[in-house]
Amino acid sequence: MSRLRLALAQFNPVVGDLDGNAAKVLDWARRAGDQGADIIAFPEMALTGYPVEDLALRRSFQDASRAMLTDVASQLGRDGLGDRLVVLGYLDGAPGTSSTLGIPAGAPQNAAAFVHDGRVLARYAKHHLPNYGVFDEFRYFVAGSSLTVAQVNGVDVAVVICEDIWQDGGPVATVRDADAGLLIVINGSPYERNKDDVRLELVRRRAADTGATLAYVNMVGGQDELVFDGDSIVVSAQGEVLARAPQFEEHLLVVDLDLPAASERPHDPTDARGVTVERVTVGGQPRSYPALPVSELSPSIAPRLEDDAEVYGALVTGLRDYVTKNGFQTVVIAVSGGIDSALTAAIACDALGAANVHGVSMPSSYSSEHSRSDAADLAERTGLHFTTVPIAAMVDEFLRAIDLTGVAEENLQARVRGVVLMGLSNEHGHLVLATGNKSELSVGYSTLYGDAVGGYAPLKDVPKTLVWQLSRWRNKDAEARGETPPIPEASISKPPSAELRPGQLDSDSLPDYELLDGVLDSYVENDRGSSELVAAGFDQALVERVLKMTDAAEYKRRQYPPGPKISLKAFGRDRRLPITNRWREHPSPPTA
Amino acid sequence: MSRLRLALAQFNPVVGDLDGNAAKVLDWARRAGDQGADIIAFPEMALTGYPVEDLALRRSFQDASRAMLTDVASQLGRDGLGDRLVVLGYLDGAPGTSSTLGIPAGAPQNAAAFVHDGRVLARYAKHHLPNYGVFDEFRYFVAGSSLTVAQVNGVDVAVVICEDIWQDGGPVATVRDADAGLLIVINGSPYERNKDDVRLELVRRRAADTGATLAYVNMVGGQDELVFDGDSIVVSAQGEVLARAPQFEEHLLVVDLDLPAASERPHDPTDARGVTVERVTVGGQPRSYPALPVSELSPSIAPRLEDDAEVYGALVTGLRDYVTKNGFQTVVIAVSGGIDSALTAAIACDALGAANVHGVSMPSSYSSEHSRSDAADLAERTGLHFTTVPIAAMVDEFLRAIDLTGVAEENLQARVRGVVLMGLSNEHGHLVLATGNKSELSVGYSTLYGDAVGGYAPLKDVPKTLVWQLSRWRNKDAEARGETPPIPEASISKPPSAELRPGQLDSDSLPDYELLDGVLDSYVENDRGSSELVAAGFDQALVERVLKMTDAAEYKRRQYPPGPKISLKAFGRDRRLPITNRWREHPSPPTA
Repeated sequence: MSRLRLALAQFNPVVGDLDGNAAKVLDWARRAGDQGADIIAFPEMALTGYPVEDLALRRSFQDASRAMLTDVASQLGRDGLGDRLVVLGYLDGAPGTSSTLGIPAGAPQNAAAFVHDGRVLARYAKHHLPNYGVFDEFRYFVAGSSLTVAQVNGVDVAVVICEDIWQDGGPVATVRDADAGLLIVINGSPYERNKDDVRLELVRRRAADTGATLAYVNMVGGQDELVFDGDSIVVSAQGEVLARAPQFEEHLLVVDLDLPAASERPHDPTDARGVTVERVTVGGQPRSYPALPVSELSPSIAPRLEDDAEVYGALVTGLRDYVTKNGFQTVVIAVSGGIDSALTAAIACDALGAANVHGVSMPSSYSSEHSRSDAADLAERTGLHFTTVPIAAMVDEFLRAIDLTGVAEENLQARVRGVVLMGLSNEHGHLVLATGNKSELSVGYSTLYGDAVGGYAPLKDVPKTLVWQLSRWRNKDAEARGETPPIPEASISKPPSAELRPGQLDSDSLPDYELLDGVLDSYVENDRGSSELVAAGFDQALVERVLKMTDAAEYKRRQYPPGPKISLKAFGRDRRLPITNRWREHPSPPTA
Repeated sequence: MSRLRLALAQFNPVVGDLDGNAAKVLDWARRAGDQGADIIAFPEMALTGYPVEDLALRRSFQDASRAMLTDVASQLGRDGLGDRLVVLGYLDGAPGTSSTLGIPAGAPQNAAAFVHDGRVLARYAKHHLPNYGVFDEFRYFVAGSSLTVAQVNGVDVAVVICEDIWQDGGPVATVRDADAGLLIVINGSPYERNKDDVRLELVRRRAADTGATLAYVNMVGGQDELVFDGDSIVVSAQGEVLARAPQFEEHLLVVDLDLPAASERPHDPTDARGVTVERVTVGGQPRSYPALPVSELSPSIAPRLEDDAEVYGALVTGLRDYVTKNGFQTVVIAVSGGIDSALTAAIACDALGAANVHGVSMPSSYSSEHSRSDAADLAERTGLHFTTVPIAAMVDEFLRAIDLTGVAEENLQARVRGVVLMGLSNEHGHLVLATGNKSELSVGYSTLYGDAVGGYAPLKDVPKTLVWQLSRWRNKDAEARGETPPIPEASISKPPSAELRPGQLDSDSLPDYELLDGVLDSYVENDRGSSELVAAGFDQALVERVLKMTDAAEYKRRQYPPGPKISLKAFGRDRRLPITNRWREHPSPPTA
């Protein structure tokens, strides 16, 4: 047995910010070094941020990533960290690869560098490229086919990347045959509701499969529609959780591991699967380091968030990073007195501070008295900036110029509000937040260029029933901490209304939200057809009504701002349907 | 030698419209049968339309596609066409496939059916799944691994699908080893500028590779951002063009082929590449058919369109099909007197007829007299419906409610126009056409929810210099036919202006369009970095300015309506960059 001190850097990179990410890598490596870490591991594509999408195909970006890696390696040496092993995810690209149809331009690879002694000692390229859900890695990367095992203080350490452990077979089997004592998995693994349990279960299974201690390091933070939740984990070969980092927070997880000495049995350089195993040795003799007692290390097993807190955390993280990484400080929200805008405002205040949140009430001639007072109540509870811009005069001026009736007139009001919001955004530099929820978006219950205006939509992937649930949870959580609940009780309890005509209620146009969300969960999240829904007990007329609305709303959904993905299928990222599409689900498929 | 009569059905399916596509297949098969065709081949995914995107993953859709194929086969039998071989692209799905990570749900396959005698005799599944550019087929399909050879009247006929002939290796090599006399390639191959020559060259090369006569059948028509141009081709093994269909038109291409009798040498059921070859025999004896003389067949080699006519044809086709397949009859366009709206209107009139095109002039207090008169001139030349809605009063009402200055005030005018257009759209059922061009879109020279409003943007992929070129071509073409040129000469010759402030010109904010389009072609189309651009002779300051604007405009581009793709990289379909992205091209990459 050898003792190794391992540091997992659960950090928040910014896509494309090579300078900033490199500076952060150096800073975190120094901190880990100060804590005596032998091995310091960063997430997948830590140097470039993740996912980089088409940037991967640009030779200039590939070159810059490789050059920055070299810079970081030599700076680590100059910083006195050359005797540690740093594992760092970056974008590689095979220079001189000829352009071949079906191979991404420049043959980019999603790679991990083994950095030691001021240089890149070895590298590993991801074998399994996910190409489903939010992933498109066959477009961007060439798969690797070898494994690197580095001997560190007499322990054999292997590194693989993310999807490599999700798919059966592949490098995991090679890790076992190579007798590695420690398997480090670097990840860019996005948050999904209830995914954390799957992740722990997987990590335990792969530790058992390989017979190695497994260290799983994930990034944290928001990147466009993705939210990375951290949740880095270290488990023993027996499946015991040795350390776990908190969710949605940057964290340097440091843990001491007692690991088996490298096997002395001879290994073939190529295993039965045809995978070449490259072996390197890091340093010569076991390094002596200041053996900080474990008690001085960070708390090693962070408590898990409960379900509602976890979703809410994802929404706050996604919003904060989208706003700040895009260079905005402030946001503006149309506050209607309804529950969607109230929850959006609460999330924004938690993410950015109430001083950076501007709420605008834009009453029309159809707006109820309670919609104004509930909006004002929200402002008072949260402390956000609050102004009122009545829209009746502007609406009337349009109606003088062109004849509009029915839905066209209803939409006009929403669009006038959109113009006001965008004016305030352009004039004052606020990012506009759209407040629509996933249920509305599914069935197209929104106005193009009206309430759909904005740069980001925090509730885009949150069904209406979950909007209520999260609002109640947020208020209860505030009460438990002796704080003012941010969301007016009236906004939670009153029947939802768009207030675009006198006495209008959502229930005039939509099924009850409990029913609607049930159908949508089957149809959207799970791609079930109408006959399956009817077989599962849903009313046939309800199913046909909801599916028809959902199919017809594809264009509106495409034009909606991005928002944080929290579910299996988030519109925009995961469900790609043609706009021009005559397929309609039928109660029963055509028979032969 | 045996003589076979082959019909290639270059037709225009509608995505998801199984009933409609099936009816069309039956109708075209009858027409081909009436002309005595032995073999009738339809394009890739002809039964479902193409591409179906996430529909491929729905079990209900897979089931419906298979059931419809069975229906079509038996109807062909009932129609007296059971003695012909019909080759038909459809979506298959392996029933009972268990859900496995990395395998698309339901194991869908992009397949070709061999239909004969009222049933599906055999099938082939595409081997090479393209996953670059506009294609994402690794998300949607499981690759096939066998080849089917059908003996028809003593001739061995093989079928492969689209990408199968673009990539080296794969089933093409198997076709040669299998001694097929005829190779039918069914395609969903989208239009790109200058692609037609590449296609002919490829078809000739594969005919030589296989030693077989090659029949290439492609679909025609628009599907969201894709335009399929037809251009079906038959070449002999020696590379002689035997028949070619026109571009952008439905066409039944019928040709008589003298083909070698099937080889009698024994073939291994599995070739050296591990590809299994399934052999089936269609019918028993050579069928006697009414031997129509070739002179009664359609003209067999259609003339090629010249470059400008070809691009213009793609734009007209894309617009017509997007509008009509989505159930619209009429469009509305903001006509400003400028060249972009004039060309958009001309395309719309050509696609839909002037009676279905509504032009709205929306002068503001900054609009010049010539902008109104040039718009009116356009209306007179084309015959489109023309109305005027002055916007000053509406703009003023917003400015009374909120203080807006500078760009915020400029954008306000564009957004008021957007609200008017959407009001007319909602009230009268017109589809709004956005008029922006690719140069503007690249550098973000447009207003979110202003001029970017619309359901479709015909010039989205057309650089400004090409807008002028196509306008001149369209006018000249009209003159040559003795018709009124649709586009006012003043709209072509005057300096471009957004007219959002007094005396404003595009050249205040943008480089000369010749220069701008040169930089964009390198940066956007070819993914070259700034150092490469400077090395190629572009001014460094110009490069930095253009790249900075282009990088910053990603969000605006995402929100833009879809438009017909005509180039290598069309925004929306082909260039996928993160919104949150700090990567900036530098004049030289960072050095190690």
